Amino acid sequence: MSGSWRSFGDEPLPVPLAAALSAFSEQGYHGTSIRRIAEKAHLSVPGLYHHYPSKQALLEGLVMTVMQELLDHSGQALEEAGPSAQRRFDHVVECLLRFHMHRRRQAFIASTEIRSMKPEVRDAYIALRDQQQRMLDRIVEQGVAEGVFATAYPQDASRAVTTMCVAVATWFRPDGDLGPDQVVQRYLSLARATVGAESG
Amino acid sequence: MSGSWRSFGDEPLPVPLAAALSAFSEQGYHGTSIRRIAEKAHLSVPGLYHHYPSKQALLEGLVMTVMQELLDHSGQALEEAGPSAQRRFDHVVECLLRFHMHRRRQAFIASTEIRSMKPEVRDAYIALRDQQQRMLDRIVEQGVAEGVFATAYPQDASRAVTTMCVAVATWFRPDGDLGPDQVVQRYLSLARATVGAESG
Repeated sequence: MSGSWRSFGDEPLPVPLAAALSAFSEQGYHGTSIRRIAEKAHLSVPGLYHHYPSKQALLEGLVMTVMQELLDHSGQALEEAGPSAQRRFDHVVECLLRFHMHRRRQAFIASTEIRSMKPEVRDAYIALRDQQQRMLDRIVEQGVAEGVFATAYPQDASRAVTTMCVAVATWFRPDGDLGPDQVVQRYLSLARATVGAESG
Repeated sequence: MSGSWRSFGDEPLPVPLAAALSAFSEQGYHGTSIRRIAEKAHLSVPGLYHHYPSKQALLEGLVMTVMQELLDHSGQALEEAGPSAQRRFDHVVECLLRFHMHRRRQAFIASTEIRSMKPEVRDAYIALRDQQQRMLDRIVEQGVAEGVFATAYPQDASRAVTTMCVAVATWFRPDGDLGPDQVVQRYLSLARATVGAESG
C-alpha cells in the first residue's frame, strides 16, 4: 500500500492505555491514581490490574506502543523513498511531522514523563527514540557525503530537524489555520534549509 | 556592561523557589507535596506559606522569574546588536541558547507544567513567552524585508529556530563533550541556515 505510512488512523490503543493517556495528559503521571484510570476505562481496579499490573506498566505500554508505531511508519517511508538522500530525508521528515500532528498527546506524555519511567522502561524507550534519530542522522550524513546537503554539522542539523518536527505537536490543532499538508510543505522547506539542501 | 547578557550566573532564586524547582524537577508539580518543598527549603510549612501562600504561587514565582530573566537578557542583547537584522538575529539566538544551557531545569518545568498552571498564571506566562517569540519574529521579518534572509515562511522559521534553541536544554550537560561556545557556534550556523541567511 504505497503511501500508507502517511496515515495515522484514529487512535488504535487498547482501552486501558487510552484511559491512561487521557489521565496522564490531564494530571501527569505522578498526579494520576490507578483508580482514576480504571474509572476512565470503565473497569474495576482489579480488572485493570488484570491487563496491566501497575501504573508503570500502563506508562510503559503507552510509550512503547507509540514509539513502535512511529518506527514502523518511518521504516515504510524509508523503504518507499528509494536510494536518493533528498527523497529519503523528505519521507522521514514528513513521517515525523504527520506522526506529531496525529499523535500529539502520546508524544507529549512520552517526552515529558521520561523522569517517571523506571530505569529499564526508560532505557527501552530511549533505545527506540535513538533508533529513530539515527535513521535521520544516517540520511543527513549520506546527503553530506554525496554533496546534496551542505551543512557543516550533520548530526546537530539532524537533531535540530527532529526537534522542529516534534515541536509541531505542541501547537498543531486539527481545527487550526494550517492543515496537515500545509504544515508538511512549510516544515519540509525549513528542514531542507536547515541541512543546507540544494532545494532548501 | 557590554556582553553581560551572555552571562547567566549561579541560580539567584529565593530559597523557596529553588526548593520548589528541585522538587518539581524530581516528581512533577502534581506529584510534589508542599511538605516536601518545605523540607528542601529547610522551612516549616507555615514558614514557607508565609512567603508563598500555595504550591501554585511557587510555580508562578518560578516560571515568571525565569521568563523575566530571559526577556531582560534578550532585550540587552538586542540593544547591543544595533540595526543589522543579521546581528540582531545572532544576538537573540545566542541569548536563547545560553539561557537554555544555563537554566535547563527551569526551562523544563516552565514548558512541561503549563497544564498545571491556573488560567491566570498560564496566561501571564504565555504572554511573556509570546513576547520573546515576537521579538525573534520581527527580526526574521525584518531580514526577509531587507533581503538578507531568504525563507518563504518567516514566522514558521522563527518558531523552528526558537524550538531548536529550547531543545538544547534537554541534552546539554555542563560536563558534556560540547562546551557552551561550541554549541552557540553550531546552532547559530543551523539557525542562520533555517532562515535562509546569506551566511547560513
